[in-house]
Amino acid sequence: MRDLPFLAFDADDTLWHNESFFALTEEAFTQLLAPYAEPGALRERLTRTERRNLGVFGYGVKGYTLSMIETAIEVTDGAVPAMVLQALLDLGKEMMAHPVTLLDGVADVLEQVAGRFPLMLITKGDLFHQEDKVARSGLADLFSAVEIVSEKDTGTYSRLLARHSIPPEQFVMIGNSLRSDVIPILEIGGWGVHIPYHLTWAHENAPEPLGHARYVRLADIRDIPAWVDAQFPSLGIVED
Amino acid sequence: MRDLPFLAFDADDTLWHNESFFALTEEAFTQLLAPYAEPGALRERLTRTERRNLGVFGYGVKGYTLSMIETAIEVTDGAVPAMVLQALLDLGKEMMAHPVTLLDGVADVLEQVAGRFPLMLITKGDLFHQEDKVARSGLADLFSAVEIVSEKDTGTYSRLLARHSIPPEQFVMIGNSLRSDVIPILEIGGWGVHIPYHLTWAHENAPEPLGHARYVRLADIRDIPAWVDAQFPSLGIVED
Repeated sequence: MRDLPFLAFDADDTLWHNESFFALTEEAFTQLLAPYAEPGALRERLTRTERRNLGVFGYGVKGYTLSMIETAIEVTDGAVPAMVLQALLDLGKEMMAHPVTLLDGVADVLEQVAGRFPLMLITKGDLFHQEDKVARSGLADLFSAVEIVSEKDTGTYSRLLARHSIPPEQFVMIGNSLRSDVIPILEIGGWGVHIPYHLTWAHENAPEPLGHARYVRLADIRDIPAWVDAQFPSLGIVED
Repeated sequence: MRDLPFLAFDADDTLWHNESFFALTEEAFTQLLAPYAEPGALRERLTRTERRNLGVFGYGVKGYTLSMIETAIEVTDGAVPAMVLQALLDLGKEMMAHPVTLLDGVADVLEQVAGRFPLMLITKGDLFHQEDKVARSGLADLFSAVEIVSEKDTGTYSRLLARHSIPPEQFVMIGNSLRSDVIPILEIGGWGVHIPYHLTWAHENAPEPLGHARYVRLADIRDIPAWVDAQFPSLGIVED
Protein backbone atom coordinates (compact mmCIF):
# COMPACT_ATOMS: atom_id res chain seq x y z
CA MET A 1 0.00 0.00 0.00
CA ARG A 2 1.39 3.39 -0.88
CA ASP A 3 0.97 6.36 1.42
CA LEU A 4 -1.38 8.71 -0.34
CA PRO A 5 -1.49 12.24 0.98
CA PHE A 6 -4.85 13.17 2.45
CA LEU A 7 -6.08 16.40 0.87
CA ALA A 8 -8.23 18.46 3.24
CA PHE A 9 -10.07 21.51 1.98
CA ASP A 10 -11.53 24.44 3.84
CA ALA A 11 -14.97 25.40 2.52
CA ASP A 12 -15.90 29.10 2.97
CA ASP A 13 -13.86 31.25 0.55
CA THR A 14 -11.86 28.20 -0.56
CA LEU A 15 -14.55 26.14 -2.32
CA TRP A 16 -17.39 28.66 -2.36
CA HIS A 17 -17.92 32.38 -1.81
CA ASN A 18 -18.67 33.49 1.73
CA GLU A 19 -16.91 36.68 2.82
CA SER A 20 -18.29 38.51 -0.20
CA PHE A 21 -21.83 37.87 1.11
CA PHE A 22 -20.82 39.21 4.50
CA ALA A 23 -19.41 42.28 2.73
CA LEU A 24 -22.71 42.82 0.89
CA THR A 25 -24.62 42.41 4.14
CA GLU A 26 -22.33 44.87 5.90
CA GLU A 27 -22.92 47.33 3.08
CA ALA A 28 -26.70 46.97 3.58
CA PHE A 29 -26.18 47.34 7.33
CA THR A 30 -24.35 50.65 6.92
CA GLN A 31 -27.04 51.94 4.56
CA LEU A 32 -29.84 51.03 6.96
CA LEU A 33 -28.02 52.80 9.80
CA ALA A 34 -26.84 55.74 7.66
CA PRO A 35 -29.17 58.24 9.42
CA TYR A 36 -27.36 57.53 12.71
CA ALA A 37 -23.66 57.13 11.95
CA GLU A 38 -21.24 57.18 9.06
CA PRO A 39 -20.19 53.93 7.36
CA GLY A 40 -16.62 53.76 8.66
CA ALA A 41 -17.66 54.15 12.28
CA LEU A 42 -20.49 51.62 11.82
CA ARG A 43 -18.15 49.02 10.37
CA GLU A 44 -15.71 49.53 13.19
CA ARG A 45 -18.43 49.21 15.86
CA LEU A 46 -19.81 46.07 14.23
CA THR A 47 -16.36 44.45 14.11
CA ARG A 48 -15.86 45.31 17.77
CA THR A 49 -19.25 43.84 18.74
CA GLU A 50 -18.52 40.70 16.72
CA ARG A 51 -15.18 40.18 18.43
CA ARG A 52 -16.74 40.73 21.85
CA ASN A 53 -19.50 38.22 21.09
CA LEU A 54 -17.32 35.56 19.47
CA GLY A 55 -16.72 33.83 22.80
CA VAL A 56 -20.47 33.76 23.53
CA PHE A 57 -21.87 32.94 20.10
CA GLY A 58 -19.03 31.26 18.19
CA TYR A 59 -18.72 31.66 14.40
CA GLY A 60 -21.58 31.89 11.98
CA VAL A 61 -24.39 33.93 10.50
CA LYS A 62 -26.76 33.69 13.48
CA GLY A 63 -24.22 35.19 15.88
CA TYR A 64 -23.34 37.80 13.24
CA THR A 65 -27.02 38.76 12.90
CA LEU A 66 -27.35 39.14 16.67
CA SER A 67 -24.21 41.30 16.63
CA MET A 68 -25.66 43.52 13.87
CA ILE A 69 -28.82 44.04 15.95
CA GLU A 70 -26.82 44.79 19.08
CA THR A 71 -24.58 47.28 17.25
CA ALA A 72 -27.60 49.04 15.74
CA ILE A 73 -29.16 49.49 19.19
CA GLU A 74 -25.88 50.62 20.72
CA VAL A 75 -24.90 53.08 18.03
CA THR A 76 -28.32 54.78 18.11
CA ASP A 77 -28.62 54.77 21.90
CA GLY A 78 -31.79 52.75 21.51
CA ALA A 79 -33.37 55.12 18.99
CA VAL A 80 -33.27 52.65 16.08
CA PRO A 81 -36.78 51.82 14.84
CA ALA A 82 -37.79 48.18 15.27
CA MET A 83 -38.42 47.96 11.53
CA VAL A 84 -34.71 48.57 10.86
CA LEU A 85 -33.91 45.72 13.23
CA GLN A 86 -36.41 43.54 11.38
CA ALA A 87 -34.53 44.42 8.18
CA LEU A 88 -31.28 43.24 9.81
CA LEU A 89 -32.99 40.01 10.83
CA ASP A 90 -34.11 39.55 7.23
CA LEU A 91 -30.54 40.13 6.02
CA GLY A 92 -29.41 37.34 8.35
CA LYS A 93 -32.08 34.98 7.01
CA GLU A 94 -31.05 35.82 3.45
CA MET A 95 -27.46 34.89 4.28
CA MET A 96 -28.58 31.58 5.78
CA ALA A 97 -30.58 30.72 2.68
CA HIS A 98 -28.18 32.19 0.10
CA PRO A 99 -27.29 29.92 -2.84
CA VAL A 100 -23.88 28.28 -2.59
CA THR A 101 -21.69 29.76 -5.34
CA LEU A 102 -18.57 27.72 -6.08
CA LEU A 103 -15.33 29.54 -6.84
CA ASP A 104 -14.03 29.19 -10.41
CA GLY A 105 -12.44 25.84 -11.13
CA VAL A 106 -13.49 24.17 -7.88
CA ALA A 107 -15.80 21.51 -9.32
CA ASP A 108 -13.26 20.45 -11.99
CA VAL A 109 -10.29 20.31 -9.65
CA LEU A 110 -12.13 18.37 -6.97
CA GLU A 111 -13.42 15.82 -9.44
CA GLN A 112 -9.94 15.44 -10.81
CA VAL A 113 -8.20 14.87 -7.47
CA ALA A 114 -11.04 12.86 -5.88
CA GLY A 115 -10.19 9.88 -8.05
CA ARG A 116 -6.57 9.87 -6.89
CA PHE A 117 -6.50 10.99 -3.27
CA PRO A 118 -8.78 10.73 -0.25
CA LEU A 119 -10.41 14.12 0.29
CA MET A 120 -11.70 15.71 3.46
CA LEU A 121 -13.68 18.88 3.98
CA ILE A 122 -12.99 20.74 7.23
CA THR A 123 -15.02 23.82 7.95
CA LYS A 124 -15.75 25.79 11.08
CA GLY A 125 -18.92 27.56 12.05
CA ASP A 126 -22.55 26.78 12.49
CA LEU A 127 -23.27 23.04 12.21
CA PHE A 128 -26.75 23.46 10.72
CA HIS A 129 -25.72 26.11 8.18
CA GLN A 130 -22.50 24.40 7.12
CA GLU A 131 -24.22 21.03 6.63
CA ASP A 132 -26.83 22.78 4.56
CA LYS A 133 -24.17 24.49 2.42
CA VAL A 134 -22.23 21.25 1.90
CA ALA A 135 -25.46 19.55 0.79
CA ARG A 136 -26.34 22.39 -1.57
CA SER A 137 -22.79 22.61 -2.99
CA GLY A 138 -23.26 19.32 -4.85
CA LEU A 139 -19.73 18.34 -3.76
CA ALA A 140 -20.50 16.16 -0.72
CA ASP A 141 -19.99 12.83 -2.50
CA LEU A 142 -16.41 13.71 -3.42
CA PHE A 143 -15.28 13.77 0.23
CA SER A 144 -14.55 10.69 2.30
CA ALA A 145 -15.14 12.79 5.42
CA VAL A 146 -16.85 16.08 6.16
CA GLU A 147 -15.85 17.62 9.49
CA ILE A 148 -17.63 20.65 10.91
CA VAL A 149 -15.76 22.07 13.88
CA SER A 150 -16.23 25.01 16.23
CA GLU A 151 -12.60 26.17 16.03
CA LYS A 152 -9.65 25.31 13.78
CA ASP A 153 -6.69 25.11 16.12
CA THR A 154 -3.89 22.61 16.73
CA GLY A 155 -6.07 20.67 19.20
CA THR A 156 -8.89 20.24 16.71
CA TYR A 157 -6.56 19.20 13.88
CA SER A 158 -4.63 16.77 16.11
CA ARG A 159 -7.87 15.08 17.17
CA LEU A 160 -9.06 14.82 13.55
CA LEU A 161 -5.78 13.30 12.36
CA ALA A 162 -5.78 10.82 15.25
CA ARG A 163 -9.39 9.84 14.61
CA HIS A 164 -8.70 9.20 10.92
CA SER A 165 -5.24 7.65 11.59
CA ILE A 166 -3.46 10.09 9.27
CA PRO A 167 0.25 10.86 9.87
CA PRO A 168 0.75 14.66 9.80
CA GLU A 169 3.35 14.52 7.02
CA GLN A 170 0.73 12.93 4.75
CA PHE A 171 -1.85 15.60 5.59
CA VAL A 172 -2.32 18.60 3.32
CA MET A 173 -4.70 21.36 4.43
CA ILE A 174 -5.78 23.74 1.69
CA GLY A 175 -7.55 26.99 2.51
CA ASN A 176 -7.77 30.76 2.35
CA SER A 177 -7.05 31.52 6.00
CA LEU A 178 -3.47 31.59 7.26
CA ARG A 179 -4.77 31.65 10.83
CA SER A 180 -7.18 28.72 10.56
CA ASP A 181 -6.08 26.62 7.60
CA VAL A 182 -2.30 26.97 7.52
CA ILE A 183 -0.51 27.92 10.74
CA PRO A 184 -1.97 25.28 13.11
CA ILE A 185 -1.33 22.56 10.50
CA LEU A 186 2.31 23.58 10.12
CA GLU A 187 2.61 23.47 13.92
CA ILE A 188 1.47 19.85 14.09
CA GLY A 189 3.73 18.72 11.23
CA GLY A 190 1.42 18.80 8.23
CA TRP A 191 1.40 20.75 4.96
CA GLY A 192 -0.35 24.11 4.77
CA VAL A 193 -1.43 25.32 1.34
CA HIS A 194 -2.65 28.90 1.26
CA ILE A 195 -4.93 30.03 -1.56
CA PRO A 196 -5.85 33.64 -0.77
CA TYR A 197 -9.39 34.93 -1.32
CA HIS A 198 -9.76 38.57 -2.36
CA LEU A 199 -11.35 39.39 1.00
CA THR A 200 -10.20 38.32 4.47
CA TRP A 201 -12.28 38.68 7.60
CA ALA A 202 -10.39 40.82 10.13
CA HIS A 203 -10.45 37.93 12.61
CA GLU A 204 -8.57 35.64 10.21
CA ASN A 205 -5.54 37.83 9.67
CA ALA A 206 -2.18 36.32 10.57
CA PRO A 207 1.46 36.78 9.49
CA GLU A 208 2.49 34.65 6.53
CA PRO A 209 4.87 31.80 7.57
CA LEU A 210 7.30 32.57 4.76
CA GLY A 211 10.21 30.17 4.49
CA HIS A 212 8.49 27.31 6.32
CA ALA A 213 9.40 24.05 4.59
CA ARG A 214 5.83 22.78 4.45
CA TYR A 215 4.15 26.09 3.64
CA VAL A 216 2.97 26.74 0.11
CA ARG A 217 1.10 29.63 -1.41
CA LEU A 218 -0.85 29.07 -4.62
CA ALA A 219 -2.71 31.65 -6.62
CA ASP A 220 -5.63 29.44 -7.57
CA ILE A 221 -7.20 26.12 -6.64
CA ARG A 222 -6.48 24.99 -10.22
CA ASP A 223 -2.78 24.86 -9.24
CA ILE A 224 -3.45 22.02 -6.77
CA PRO A 225 -3.09 18.95 -9.06
CA ALA A 226 0.32 20.05 -10.38
CA TRP A 227 1.56 20.94 -6.90
CA VAL A 228 0.50 17.57 -5.46
CA ASP A 229 2.20 15.73 -8.34
CA ALA A 230 5.41 17.68 -7.80
CA GLN A 231 5.35 17.29 -4.04
CA PHE A 232 4.50 13.61 -3.90
CA PRO A 233 6.22 12.36 -7.09
CA SER A 234 6.34 8.69 -6.05
CA LEU A 235 2.60 8.63 -6.60
CA GLY A 236 3.20 8.74 -10.33
CA ILE A 237 4.28 5.10 -10.06
CA VAL A 238 1.33 2.76 -9.72
CA GLU A 239 2.01 0.05 -7.15
CA ASP A 240 -0.08 -2.87 -5.99
CA MET B 1 -14.70 -10.65 23.21
CA ARG B 2 -18.24 -10.23 24.45
CA ASP B 3 -20.69 -7.92 22.76
CA LEU B 4 -21.19 -5.06 25.16
CA PRO B 5 -24.17 -2.86 24.52
CA PHE B 6 -23.23 0.67 23.60
CA LEU B 7 -25.08 3.11 25.87
CA ALA B 8 -25.82 6.41 24.15
CA PHE B 9 -27.20 9.33 26.14
CA ASP B 10 -29.00 12.43 25.00
CA ALA B 11 -27.76 15.54 26.83
CA ASP B 12 -30.32 18.37 27.15
CA ASP B 13 -33.00 17.37 29.71
CA THR B 14 -31.49 13.88 30.03
CA LEU B 15 -28.13 14.68 31.65
CA TRP B 16 -28.65 18.36 32.44
CA HIS B 17 -31.46 20.88 32.65
CA ASN B 18 -32.30 22.75 29.48
CA GLU B 19 -36.02 23.20 28.82
CA SER B 20 -36.46 24.75 32.26
CA PHE B 21 -34.08 27.58 31.23
CA PHE B 22 -36.08 28.10 28.05
CA ALA B 23 -39.24 28.24 30.23
CA LEU B 24 -37.66 30.90 32.47
CA THR B 25 -36.57 32.88 29.41
CA GLU B 26 -40.05 32.63 27.92
CA GLU B 27 -41.47 33.91 31.20
CA ALA B 28 -39.13 36.92 31.04
CA PHE B 29 -40.09 37.41 27.38
CA THR B 30 -43.81 37.58 28.22
CA GLN B 31 -43.13 40.04 31.05
CA LEU B 32 -41.07 42.32 28.82
CA LEU B 33 -43.82 42.29 26.20
CA ALA B 34 -46.69 42.48 28.71
CA PRO B 35 -47.63 46.07 27.70
CA TYR B 36 -48.37 44.81 24.18
CA ALA B 37 -50.02 41.40 24.46
CA GLU B 38 -51.13 38.89 27.04
CA PRO B 39 -48.85 35.98 27.99
CA GLY B 40 -50.82 33.18 26.32
CA ALA B 41 -50.93 34.94 22.97
CA LEU B 42 -47.23 35.83 23.22
CA ARG B 43 -46.23 32.25 23.91
CA GLU B 44 -48.30 31.04 21.01
CA ARG B 45 -46.81 33.62 18.62
CA LEU B 46 -43.28 32.77 19.76
CA THR B 47 -43.84 29.04 19.22
CA ARG B 48 -45.22 29.77 15.76
CA THR B 49 -42.19 31.97 14.87
CA GLU B 50 -39.80 29.31 16.18
CA ARG B 51 -41.40 26.60 14.07
CA ARG B 52 -41.34 28.82 10.99
CA ASN B 53 -37.65 29.61 11.54
CA LEU B 54 -36.51 26.09 12.41
CA GLY B 55 -35.75 25.28 8.78
CA VAL B 56 -33.68 28.49 8.44
CA PHE B 57 -31.87 28.56 11.78
CA GLY B 58 -31.89 24.96 13.04
CA TYR B 59 -31.99 24.22 16.79
CA GLY B 60 -30.35 26.24 19.49
CA VAL B 61 -30.33 29.37 21.60
CA LYS B 62 -29.12 31.77 18.89
CA GLY B 63 -32.00 30.91 16.57
CA TYR B 64 -34.39 31.08 19.54
CA THR B 65 -33.10 34.57 20.42
CA LEU B 66 -33.60 35.75 16.84
CA SER B 67 -37.14 34.31 16.97
CA MET B 68 -37.89 36.17 20.23
CA ILE B 69 -36.77 39.44 18.63
CA GLU B 70 -38.81 38.76 15.50
CA THR B 71 -41.92 37.91 17.53
CA ALA B 72 -41.55 41.06 19.64
CA ILE B 73 -41.39 43.25 16.52
CA GLU B 74 -44.31 41.42 14.91
CA VAL B 75 -46.61 41.42 17.91
CA THR B 76 -46.12 45.17 18.50
CA ASP B 77 -46.33 46.12 14.82
CA GLY B 78 -42.85 47.57 15.13
CA ALA B 79 -43.67 49.67 18.21
CA VAL B 80 -41.40 47.70 20.57
CA PRO B 81 -38.63 49.94 21.97
CA ALA B 82 -35.11 48.91 20.99
CA MET B 83 -34.24 48.60 24.67
CA VAL B 84 -36.72 45.74 25.05
CA LEU B 85 -35.05 44.02 22.11
CA GLN B 86 -31.67 44.57 23.77
CA ALA B 87 -33.11 42.88 26.87
CA LEU B 88 -34.12 39.89 24.72
CA LEU B 89 -30.60 39.78 23.30
CA ASP B 90 -29.24 39.77 26.84
CA LEU B 91 -31.59 36.89 27.76
CA GLY B 92 -30.14 34.93 24.84
CA LYS B 93 -26.59 35.61 25.99
CA GLU B 94 -27.48 34.53 29.53
CA MET B 95 -28.81 31.24 28.17
CA MET B 96 -25.60 30.69 26.19
CA ALA B 97 -23.47 31.29 29.28
CA HIS B 98 -25.77 29.60 31.81
CA PRO B 99 -24.12 27.10 34.17
CA VAL B 100 -24.70 23.47 33.27
CA THR B 101 -26.85 21.93 35.99
CA LEU B 102 -26.84 18.14 36.02
CA LEU B 103 -30.07 16.28 36.77
CA ASP B 104 -30.15 14.36 40.05
CA GLY B 105 -28.20 11.13 39.99
CA VAL B 106 -26.56 11.71 36.61
CA ALA B 107 -22.94 11.94 37.77
CA ASP B 108 -23.21 8.78 39.93
CA VAL B 109 -24.98 6.69 37.32
CA LEU B 110 -22.61 7.68 34.51
CA GLU B 111 -19.54 6.93 36.60
CA GLN B 112 -21.04 3.59 37.52
CA VAL B 113 -21.84 2.47 33.97
CA ALA B 114 -18.77 4.06 32.34
CA GLY B 115 -16.57 1.35 33.86
CA ARG B 116 -18.68 -1.41 32.33
CA PHE B 117 -19.98 -0.19 28.97
CA PRO B 118 -18.79 2.12 26.21
CA LEU B 119 -20.74 5.36 26.48
CA MET B 120 -21.65 7.86 23.79
CA LEU B 121 -23.23 11.27 24.07
CA ILE B 122 -25.47 12.31 21.18
CA THR B 123 -26.95 15.76 21.25
CA LYS B 124 -28.47 17.99 18.63
CA GLY B 125 -28.29 21.74 18.32
CA ASP B 126 -25.67 24.41 18.12
CA LEU B 127 -22.15 22.97 17.79
CA PHE B 128 -20.41 25.78 19.67
CA HIS B 129 -22.92 25.87 22.54
CA GLN B 130 -23.20 22.08 22.92
CA GLU B 131 -19.40 21.61 22.95
CA ASP B 132 -19.20 24.32 25.57
CA LYS B 133 -21.88 22.62 27.70
CA VAL B 134 -20.22 19.20 27.41
CA ALA B 135 -16.92 20.75 28.52
CA ARG B 136 -18.55 22.55 31.43
CA SER B 137 -20.56 19.48 32.52
CA GLY B 138 -17.41 17.77 33.76
CA LEU B 139 -18.67 14.53 32.15
CA ALA B 140 -16.73 14.59 28.88
CA ASP B 141 -14.10 12.05 29.96
CA LEU B 142 -16.73 9.39 30.64
CA PHE B 143 -17.76 9.18 26.98
CA SER B 144 -15.81 7.33 24.31
CA ALA B 145 -17.51 9.51 21.71
CA VAL B 146 -19.37 12.82 21.75
CA GLU B 147 -21.52 13.44 18.69
CA ILE B 148 -23.18 16.78 18.03
CA VAL B 149 -25.68 16.55 15.20
CA SER B 150 -28.07 18.94 13.48
CA GLU B 151 -31.03 16.53 13.51
CA LYS B 152 -31.73 13.22 15.24
CA ASP B 153 -33.42 11.09 12.63
CA THR B 154 -32.96 7.56 11.29
CA GLY B 155 -30.40 8.79 8.74
CA THR B 156 -28.23 10.43 11.38
CA TYR B 157 -28.39 7.42 13.71
CA SER B 158 -27.66 4.96 10.90
CA ARG B 159 -24.57 6.92 9.88
CA LEU B 160 -23.35 7.09 13.49
CA LEU B 161 -23.80 3.35 14.04
CA ALA B 162 -22.01 2.57 10.78
CA ARG B 163 -19.14 4.92 11.58
CA HIS B 164 -18.66 3.32 15.00
CA SER B 165 -19.35 -0.23 13.71
CA ILE B 166 -22.12 -0.84 16.24
CA PRO B 167 -24.87 -3.37 15.40
CA PRO B 168 -28.30 -1.78 16.12
CA GLU B 169 -29.35 -4.54 18.54
CA GLN B 170 -26.36 -3.61 20.74
CA PHE B 171 -27.21 0.07 20.67
CA VAL B 172 -29.23 1.63 23.49
CA MET B 173 -30.29 5.26 23.15
CA ILE B 174 -31.40 6.92 26.38
CA GLY B 175 -33.19 10.25 26.35
CA ASN B 176 -36.17 12.41 27.22
CA SER B 177 -37.55 12.91 23.72
CA LEU B 178 -39.69 10.23 22.12
CA ARG B 179 -39.39 12.01 18.80
CA SER B 180 -35.60 12.39 18.76
CA ASP B 181 -34.18 9.81 21.16
CA VAL B 182 -36.55 6.86 20.91
CA ILE B 183 -38.64 6.48 17.76
CA PRO B 184 -35.87 6.73 15.11
CA ILE B 185 -33.73 4.27 17.10
CA LEU B 186 -36.55 1.72 17.28
CA GLU B 187 -37.00 2.12 13.52
CA ILE B 188 -33.40 1.17 12.80
CA GLY B 189 -33.43 -1.83 15.15
CA GLY B 190 -31.95 -0.44 18.35
CA TRP B 191 -33.22 0.01 21.89
CA GLY B 192 -35.02 3.20 22.88
CA VAL B 193 -35.09 4.10 26.57
CA HIS B 194 -37.36 7.00 27.42
CA ILE B 195 -36.77 8.95 30.62
CA PRO B 196 -39.30 11.80 30.62
CA TYR B 197 -38.35 15.29 31.76
CA HIS B 198 -41.04 17.34 33.48
CA LEU B 199 -41.16 19.72 30.52
CA THR B 200 -41.24 18.85 26.82
CA TRP B 201 -40.71 21.37 24.03
CA ALA B 202 -43.77 21.41 21.77
CA HIS B 203 -41.60 20.39 18.82
CA GLU B 204 -40.50 17.17 20.54
CA ASN B 205 -43.96 15.73 21.17
CA ALA B 206 -44.65 12.32 19.64
CA PRO B 207 -46.94 9.37 20.40
CA GLU B 208 -45.48 6.80 22.80
CA PRO B 209 -44.54 3.53 21.01
CA LEU B 210 -46.26 1.40 23.65
CA GLY B 211 -45.86 -2.34 23.18
CA HIS B 212 -42.73 -2.10 21.03
CA ALA B 213 -40.35 -4.93 22.02
CA ARG B 214 -37.31 -2.67 22.30
CA TYR B 215 -39.05 0.32 23.89
CA VAL B 216 -38.59 1.00 27.57
CA ARG B 217 -39.79 3.80 29.78
CA LEU B 218 -37.94 4.50 33.00
CA ALA B 219 -38.85 7.06 35.65
CA ASP B 220 -35.30 8.11 36.44
CA ILE B 221 -31.76 7.79 35.10
CA ARG B 222 -30.91 5.95 38.32
CA ASP B 223 -32.94 3.01 36.95
CA ILE B 224 -30.46 2.51 34.10
CA PRO B 225 -27.92 0.15 35.74
CA ALA B 226 -30.59 -2.34 36.89
CA TRP B 227 -32.32 -2.23 33.51
CA VAL B 228 -29.09 -2.88 31.60
CA ASP B 229 -28.24 -5.80 33.91
CA ALA B 230 -31.70 -7.30 33.40
CA GLN B 231 -31.69 -6.76 29.65
CA PHE B 232 -28.17 -8.01 28.94
CA PRO B 233 -27.79 -10.68 31.68
CA SER B 234 -24.88 -12.50 30.03
CA LEU B 235 -22.74 -9.52 30.94
CA GLY B 236 -22.84 -10.61 34.57
CA ILE B 237 -20.33 -13.32 33.63
CA VAL B 238 -16.83 -11.92 33.33
CA GLU B 239 -15.00 -13.38 30.36
CA ASP B 240 -11.46 -12.89 29.11
